[in-house]
Amino acid sequence: MYFHRQELQHKATPDKPDAVYARKLQEVLGGQYGEISVAMQYSFQAWNMHMPGKYRDLVFGIAAEEMGHVEMLAVMIAQLLEKAPLGITDDAVQSDPTVAAVVGGTDIQHGIVAGAGARPVDSMGNPWQGSYITASGNLLADFTSNANAEMQGRVQVARLYHMTDDHGVRDLLKFLLARDTMHQNQWMAAAAELREEGLEGWPVPSNFPQRKEHTDVSYEYINFSDGEAASEGSWAKGPTPDGHGEFSYRSEPEPGVPMPPATQPDARWYGTTPKPNTMEKIAGEVQDKLHME
Amino acid sequence: MYFHRQELQHKATPDKPDAVYARKLQEVLGGQYGEISVAMQYSFQAWNMHMPGKYRDLVFGIAAEEMGHVEMLAVMIAQLLEKAPLGITDDAVQSDPTVAAVVGGTDIQHGIVAGAGARPVDSMGNPWQGSYITASGNLLADFTSNANAEMQGRVQVARLYHMTDDHGVRDLLKFLLARDTMHQNQWMAAAAELREEGLEGWPVPSNFPQRKEHTDVSYEYINFSDGEAASEGSWAKGPTPDGHGEFSYRSEPEPGVPMPPATQPDARWYGTTPKPNTMEKIAGEVQDKLHME
Amino acid sequence: MYFHRQELQHKATPDKPDAVYARKLQEVLGGQYGEISVAMQYSFQAWNMHMPGKYRDLVFGIAAEEMGHVEMLAVMIAQLLEKAPLGITDDAVQSDPTVAAVVGGTDIQHGIVAGAGARPVDSMGNPWQGSYITASGNLLADFTSNANAEMQGRVQVARLYHMTDDHGVRDLLKFLLARDTMHQNQWMAAAAELREEGLEGWPVPSNFPQRKEHTDVSYEYINFSDGEAASEGSWAKGPTPDGHGEFSYRSEPEPGVPMPPATQPDARWYGTTPKPNTMEKIAGEVQDKLHME
Amino acid sequence: MYFHRQELQHKATPDKPDAVYARKLQEVLGGQYGEISVAMQYSFQAWNMHMPGKYRDLVFGIAAEEMGHVEMLAVMIAQLLEKAPLGITDDAVQSDPTVAAVVGGTDIQHGIVAGAGARPVDSMGNPWQGSYITASGNLLADFTSNANAEMQGRVQVARLYHMTDDHGVRDLLKFLLARDTMHQNQWMAAAAELREEGLEGWPVPSNFPQRKEHTDVSYEYINFSDGEAASEGSWAKGPTPDGHGEFSYRSEPEPGVPMPPATQPDARWYGTTPKPNTMEKIAGEVQDKLHME
Amino acid sequence: MYFHRQELQHKATPDKPDAVYARKLQEVLGGQYGEISVAMQYSFQAWNMHMPGKYRDLVFGIAAEEMGHVEMLAVMIAQLLEKAPLGITDDAVQSDPTVAAVVGGTDIQHGIVAGAGARPVDSMGNPWQGSYITASGNLLADFTSNANAEMQGRVQVARLYHMTDDHGVRDLLKFLLARDTMHQNQWMAAAAELREEGLEGWPVPSNFPQRKEHTDVSYEYINFSDGEAASEGSWAKGPTPDGHGEFSYRSEPEPGVPMPPATQPDARWYGTTPKPNTMEKIAGEVQDKLHME
Amino acid sequence: MYFHRQELQHKATPDKPDAVYARKLQEVLGGQYGEISVAMQYSFQAWNMHMPGKYRDLVFGIAAEEMGHVEMLAVMIAQLLEKAPLGITDDAVQSDPTVAAVVGGTDIQHGIVAGAGARPVDSMGNPWQGSYITASGNLLADFTSNANAEMQGRVQVARLYHMTDDHGVRDLLKFLLARDTMHQNQWMAAAAELREEGLEGWPVPSNFPQRKEHTDVSYEYINFSDGEAASEGSWAKGPTPDGHGEFSYRSEPEPGVPMPPATQPDARWYGTTPKPNTMEKIAGEVQDKLHME
Repeated sequence: MYFHRQELQHKATPDKPDAVYARKLQEVLGGQYGEISVAMQYSFQAWNMHMPGKYRDLVFGIAAEEMGHVEMLAVMIAQLLEKAPLGITDDAVQSDPTVAAVVGGTDIQHGIVAGAGARPVDSMGNPWQGSYITASGNLLADFTSNANAEMQGRVQVARLYHMTDDHGVRDLLKFLLARDTMHQNQWMAAAAELREEGLEGWPVPSNFPQRKEHTDVSYEYINFSDGEAASEGSWAKGPTPDGHGEFSYRSEPEPGVPMPPATQPDARWYGTTPKPNTMEKIAGEVQDKLHME
Repeated sequence: MYFHRQELQHKATPDKPDAVYARKLQEVLGGQYGEISVAMQYSFQAWNMHMPGKYRDLVFGIAAEEMGHVEMLAVMIAQLLEKAPLGITDDAVQSDPTVAAVVGGTDIQHGIVAGAGARPVDSMGNPWQGSYITASGNLLADFTSNANAEMQGRVQVARLYHMTDDHGVRDLLKFLLARDTMHQNQWMAAAAELREEGLEGWPVPSNFPQRKEHTDVSYEYINFSDGEAASEGSWAKGPTPDGHGEFSYRSEPEPGVPMPPATQPDARWYGTTPKPNTMEKIAGEVQDKLHME
Repeated sequence: MYFHRQELQHKATPDKPDAVYARKLQEVLGGQYGEISVAMQYSFQAWNMHMPGKYRDLVFGIAAEEMGHVEMLAVMIAQLLEKAPLGITDDAVQSDPTVAAVVGGTDIQHGIVAGAGARPVDSMGNPWQGSYITASGNLLADFTSNANAEMQGRVQVARLYHMTDDHGVRDLLKFLLARDTMHQNQWMAAAAELREEGLEGWPVPSNFPQRKEHTDVSYEYINFSDGEAASEGSWAKGPTPDGHGEFSYRSEPEPGVPMPPATQPDARWYGTTPKPNTMEKIAGEVQDKLHME
Repeated sequence: MYFHRQELQHKATPDKPDAVYARKLQEVLGGQYGEISVAMQYSFQAWNMHMPGKYRDLVFGIAAEEMGHVEMLAVMIAQLLEKAPLGITDDAVQSDPTVAAVVGGTDIQHGIVAGAGARPVDSMGNPWQGSYITASGNLLADFTSNANAEMQGRVQVARLYHMTDDHGVRDLLKFLLARDTMHQNQWMAAAAELREEGLEGWPVPSNFPQRKEHTDVSYEYINFSDGEAASEGSWAKGPTPDGHGEFSYRSEPEPGVPMPPATQPDARWYGTTPKPNTMEKIAGEVQDKLHME
Repeated sequence: MYFHRQELQHKATPDKPDAVYARKLQEVLGGQYGEISVAMQYSFQAWNMHMPGKYRDLVFGIAAEEMGHVEMLAVMIAQLLEKAPLGITDDAVQSDPTVAAVVGGTDIQHGIVAGAGARPVDSMGNPWQGSYITASGNLLADFTSNANAEMQGRVQVARLYHMTDDHGVRDLLKFLLARDTMHQNQWMAAAAELREEGLEGWPVPSNFPQRKEHTDVSYEYINFSDGEAASEGSWAKGPTPDGHGEFSYRSEPEPGVPMPPATQPDARWYGTTPKPNTMEKIAGEVQDKLHME
Repeated sequence: MYFHRQELQHKATPDKPDAVYARKLQEVLGGQYGEISVAMQYSFQAWNMHMPGKYRDLVFGIAAEEMGHVEMLAVMIAQLLEKAPLGITDDAVQSDPTVAAVVGGTDIQHGIVAGAGARPVDSMGNPWQGSYITASGNLLADFTSNANAEMQGRVQVARLYHMTDDHGVRDLLKFLLARDTMHQNQWMAAAAELREEGLEGWPVPSNFPQRKEHTDVSYEYINFSDGEAASEGSWAKGPTPDGHGEFSYRSEPEPGVPMPPATQPDARWYGTTPKPNTMEKIAGEVQDKLHME
C-alpha cells in the first residue's frame, strides 16, 4: 500500500517562472532516466523479488522515495509554467522574435494539452513508456542497471544545473544531486554485498554452468575494427574481473563459416525464389497447383 | 566505414525448423537488450566519443562484432521459420488444436509481413526503438550501462537455452553466452581502468563540484517503506564505495516542507480555479474581458 | 511524499499458478485503462491543480490508492507465473500441442525478460505509455475522463472475472469491481458538485465566451451518414443538457465551400507543381536559379 | 462506404501564413484528442456496435463529419505553411534570432518530410496512434469517453483561439468550438437516453451482478492521502449517483493483509533466491543438475 | 467533406466465426501496409497537393475508397469474433489445450478491451501509427510509395488467402486482391504520366541541379560486401534508368578519409575527455572554476 | 560478419558548429527515411533472401555502405554540436531571444541526454523504430520500397541542402545526393531485371493465380470523390502497365450491399444490446444467470 502526505521531501519552488526551462526539466521527470523510470523500475523489482528481507526492503524503500521525486519535479514544473505565454495575439510570430523564441523553446503541450501543467513526457515530448525499465529477477544484473540509472540521472541533473541561475530551481537540483550520489553508492554497495554473500556472481547469471558455453572465446578480445589501441587495455590481457580467466587479444576474427543455404519456404508466402529449370518448373507447377487452392 | 563479409562468426543452423522458437529468439535480436541494441549503443558511443585511442577502439571493435551477432540471429530465425505453417485451410482453428497451438505461439508477422523471415522486433512483436540505447558521453556511466546490457543479455540467452533441445540452436547460444561473458568482463575492466587513470570516478559525474550538492543527504539512507531490514545492509553503514563518505541510516524521512501554493496561470488556459468572492469577481471579469478578445 | 507499507489493501493470492491468465491480467495493470493509468492520471491532475482543498485532496487520496492496486496486480501476476513453464526441451513444439498452447497464450517476456515476473505492459505486450493519461487542468473535463476510465476499467475487470474460476483471483477482482463502482460514482458526484458550485459548467470550458463560437451550429445535429434513425434521439430535438439551447436536426449538411486554391510553396521544397506555360517557365527558371544556390 | 466531396464544411483559409501556428494546430488534428481520434473512435464504435438503429446512426453520422474536420485542419495547416522558411542560408542561426525563432517554433518535419504540408502528428511531433481511441462495445462507457473527448477537444481549441489573431484561423476555430459544443451535448444526451431506456446503467457495466463484488467497499471513500477536506464533498456522504447506495468516509484504510510469500520460480529463470543452508543446498544442486541440461 | 452510406462496397460476411483468423486479418486493417495506412496516406497527399486536377482527383478518389475497405475489414473482424470464447472457467488452461490454443492465437484485447470488436492495430497488437504514412509533396516519390504500399498489401492479402477456407472471408479477399491489382497498376500509370508530362523525373527530385551533387559517384556501384555477383547485374553496367548516365562497378571503395578529431565540447556536459598534462590541467581547472558556478 | 575501418567514405566536417542544423540533420540519420532505415531494411532483406547470387550480393553490398552513411552523419552531427550552448545562466530566457532561439531550435536531448552527441532519433526527437522498414521476401515489392526510400531520402537531403550555407556540410550532402541518385537508379534497374528474368512480375505477387481474384474490378477505376478529372488520366483508359488488361472508368461505385446484421456476442462481454421484449427478457435472464457464475 502507498500513502501520500501533502508535503514535499525538499522545497521545490522557483524564484520565477521560466517556461523554456520547464520543458528541459521534463527530461528528469519523464525521460528514459527520469524519476518515473526509477520509481517504476524499483517497484517492479520489489514486486517480483524472490526473497523478502534486506534487499527487498531496500528496493521498496527507495522506490517510494522516487515517487516523491516525481512529485517535486511535477510541482516545480507547474510553477515554472505559471506565466507560460499563450502565444501571439497582436502580431504574426514572424515579426516578434522574443515571444517566438519562448514559444519555440517550450513544450507546446504544456499549454494546449495540460493548461500550464507538468506532463509524463521527456524534454522532446516523447511520452514515458514501460519499456524504459528493467526488472529481470536477477539482482546483480538489476542492481547494475540501477547504478547505471542513477549515474545517467546524476549526469543529466548536473547538466541541467548549469542551464539556469534560478536559486529555487538550483536548490532542488542540489538535493537531487545528493540523492543520486547516495543511490549510486547504495546500488554499488548492494551489488557487492550480493557477491560477497554468494547469492550471485560474475558472469551473470553465475549459476548457469559455465562449462556449457564455448569457453574458448569466453575471455578473448576479438577486434572487428582497425584500431589496435584496444590491445593496450586491461580488457585485453591479465586476469578477468570475474576471477575465472585470463584475457587474451586477437586482432581480427578467425575465418568464419559460410552462410547457410538460402531458405526455401512454402511457395504460398510468395517470396522470390530462383527460377527453376524446365523440368523442375513443370514439377513445381503441378505441386503448386495442388497447394494453391 | 563498414565492410560486410558473407561469412558468419559462428555456425547458425538449427537441426530443424521451429516457428515458435523463432519468435522467442526475436527477443535477443530486437528486444530492449537484444543485439541491435548493443550494436547501436556501442556505435553511438564511439561516434560521440571525445577522445581517440584505446577506449574508442574498444567500443568500435565490439560494436562491429555485435552487428555480426544480429546477422547470425536473423539467419537462424529465417531457418527456424523455413517450414512455418501458413495456417488453416481445411478446418476451423477451433477444432484443430495442434495447428492452432503453433499459430498461437508464432509471431504472426513472421509470415504475413516477412514471408517467413526475421524482423527487427522483440518476442512480443514490439519494434526495436532508438530509445533503448544509452550514450551520454560520460564513459563511466556508459560502460556501466554496457555491463548491464551484457548481463541482461546473458540472462536472457541462458533462459532461451533451456527452451529448446535443438543442437544447432544450442550451439549458437553457447557461443553467444561465451561472448556475453567476455563482454561483461571487458566493460567492468574498462570501467575500472577509467577510474584508475583518473578520467572519471564515483559519483558520476565526478567533476561536478560535490560541495555544491546538499551533502547532508549524500550518504544517508532514508527509508520510505516500513521494512526495517534494509538497515542491515552495507548501504546503511560503513564507508561508501566512492570513498568519500560514510553511510548513515534514517528509518523515516524528516518532516517535509508544505506543498507550495497552487499555481494561478492565465485564465485563458481555462483551468478550474477557486470561485472568487464578489469583489474579486467583478474585477476579474473586467480584466478577463480585456484579455478575452 | 509517498510512503509504502508492506501490506496489501486486499488479499492477492491465486489458488494456483496460471501463466496464460497472468498475461490477460496485465491489461488492467499496464493497459490503456489499467491501474498505472489511473494512478498517474490522478497524480498529475493533483500536481497541476490550481486550487487546494477538497477536490485536490480527493484526487491525491485516490491516486495513492491506485498505486496500491498496481501493486496488488503485480504481486498477483508474479504468483500466477510461479510455475511458468520454460518451454520445450524434449520435443519440437509442433508435436506437443499442450505445452505449445500455454506458450502461445503467455506473454513471452514474462519469462525471458522478467524471469517469471510482472511487467508494465498490457495483455498484448505493448508498454504502458504516458500518452494514456489526461490532465488538462479543467476539472469538469478531467473528472469526466476519470469517470470514463473507471467505467472502462470496470468493464474489463468484469470480463476478466469470467475468464477464470480461480477463487483467489476472483476474490481480488471482486474487490477491484467494488472499488471501480465507488470511483465511478465518486467522479460523477464530483463532476456534479463542480457544476453546482459554479466552478465549471457545460459546455466545457464554460467561461469561453460562447457568443464567439458560430452559434448557428452549436446545437444542430448534422447527419453525414444515411441512417435517419438518429433523428429520433433526444440529441436531435428538445432542450440541450447544458441548458443553453434546443437541439435541431438537419438530414444532410448545407452546401460546403469550395476547396481553397492549392498551395504554392517555395520551389526548394521540391514538391510537384503544375507545369507553367513557356513564358512563365522562363521567368521561373531565372528566379529558381537565383534561389537554388 | 465513404464518399468524398471536394468541398469543405466551413471556410478554412488563413489571412496569412504562420508556420509556427501551423505546428500548434497539429494538436487538434493529430493529437490524443485531435480530430483523427474522434473520427476513428466513432467509426470503430459504429463498426463494432451490437444493434442497428438510432445509436449506430448517430455514431456513423458524427464519425463522417469528423473526417471532414480532419480535412479542414489539414488544408488550413498546408496554407499556414505556404511561406514556411527553408531556414538559414546566409548566416549562422546563432546570429539571427528572428529566423531562428521561427525555426525553433516550427515542426521541422513539416518542411523536411512533408514539403510544407500537414502531417498525422501532434504539436510535439508524436505520430497519431491507434491506442488513443476507445471502443469497448459498452455504449454508456463509450459515450462517456466521447463526451470527454469533445470536452478536452473544445478546451484545446479555446486555448488555440487566443494564440492567434488571424481572422481566417479564428473563423475556423469558432466553427469547431460550436461543433464541439454540439457534440458534448449530444453525447451527454445519448448517455442519458441509454439509461432511460434501460439499455445500460450505473455502475457500468450494469448487468454484472453487483452482489458479486465486495459490496462493503462499493460506496466507501478510503483516504490514502493526508488531506481531510475530501470528507466534505458529496462523494463522501449522501446517496450515490447510481442510486444504489450511500457514500461513507474512512480517513485511512483498514489494516491490510501481509504480502504473500515471495515467489520461487524454476531455477532456470536465473532469478536471485535466498541462499539455502547446506543440506538444502546439496539436494538442490542434485535437482538442478538434473534440470540444467 | 466525407459522407457515409450504410452499405458495403462488397459483401463482408464469414461463413462462421474464427477468432484466431480475426487477429490475422488485423494486419491488413491496422498494420504498416493495412487499409488505414493507404486511406490516410492518400488523404494527406491530396490535402497537401500543390495542384488541382486529375492527379488530386485521383488521390482523393482512391483515399475515400480505402476508408470503405477499412470498414469492410472491421465489420468482417467483428463477425469473426462473434463467438469469441471468454476463456477458461472450469479448468486450468494448462490442462485444456483446445481452448488454450484459441486463446493463444487470439488478440486478447479483441475481447477484454473491445468486447469482441475490431481494433486499430496490427496482427501482433501494435497500434496503427501516423509514422506509417508518406506524403512528401513530390508526386513521383509519393506515387512510388503508393505502388509499394499496394504491392506489399496484395502480398499480405494473398498470404492471408491461404490461411482460411472460409468462403465468405475468401470472397472478400478476392475482392481486395482485385482492387490491389487495380491500384498497383494505377499508381504505376500515374508515375509514368508524371514523367511523360515533365512534371517530375528521375532522379527524384529532378529539378535539384544535378551538377551540384558529386557526380563522380552518381552512377558508380561501390561494393561493401564480398559477394562479386552483383557486378553481373544491369545496375553495374550499361545505361541508367534515369537516362542521364552509365553504370560503373567498383569492387571496393576507394580509400576513405580519416576520422575527424574527436569533439571537445564544454566541460559542463560532463563527457569524458583525455587527461591533460599538468600544465594544461592547472589552466583548465582555473577555467573550469570560472564556469562551474 | 561486419568489419569497421576507422575511415569515412567521404569527408564529414562542418566549417563551424551549428546546433540548430544538427537537429535538422537528424532527420536523415534516424528518421523514417534516414540512413538507419535503409541500412536495416537492406540488411533484413539480405538475411531473409531465398536465393544467393547477384540480388543478395547487391543488397548486402549497399546495406554495409549505408551503415557507413549513418556513421558520417553521426560524426557530422557531433561536430555541429561541439559548441552547443548549455543554455541560460544569467537571465531568464524570456528576456534573451537570441539564446532562446537557439534553445528552441535545438534537440534538447542532444545536450541533456547525449552530452553534445548524435542520437538515433529524427528531427522532432522521435526514436528510430523497427516498424519503418520493409522486407517482405517478395523482391519486386521490396525493390520498389527501396526505390521509394531512396527517392524520399534524396528529396529530404535536397531540402536540407538549402537550409545551410556551411561548405563542409554541403560537401557531405552533395556526396549523399549522388549516392541517392545511384541507389534510386540501381533499385529501378534491379526491379526491371527481376521482371525480365521472369522471377517476379506485375501485379505483385505475380504467381498468385489471378483468375481467383474478382477480375471484374481488377482494372476498373471507381471514383469515390466528386472530381471527374481523374477520368482523363492514363489510369482510366488504355492498357494497364502489367500488360494483362485494359483500364476502365466508373464515375461512382455500383450500389453496395447492405451492412450485415449487428453482431450478438456473449452477454459476458457486457456490450450494449437491444432491449428484448418481455418474453425474451425472462428467457434471457434465466440463461444469463446460468452463465454469470
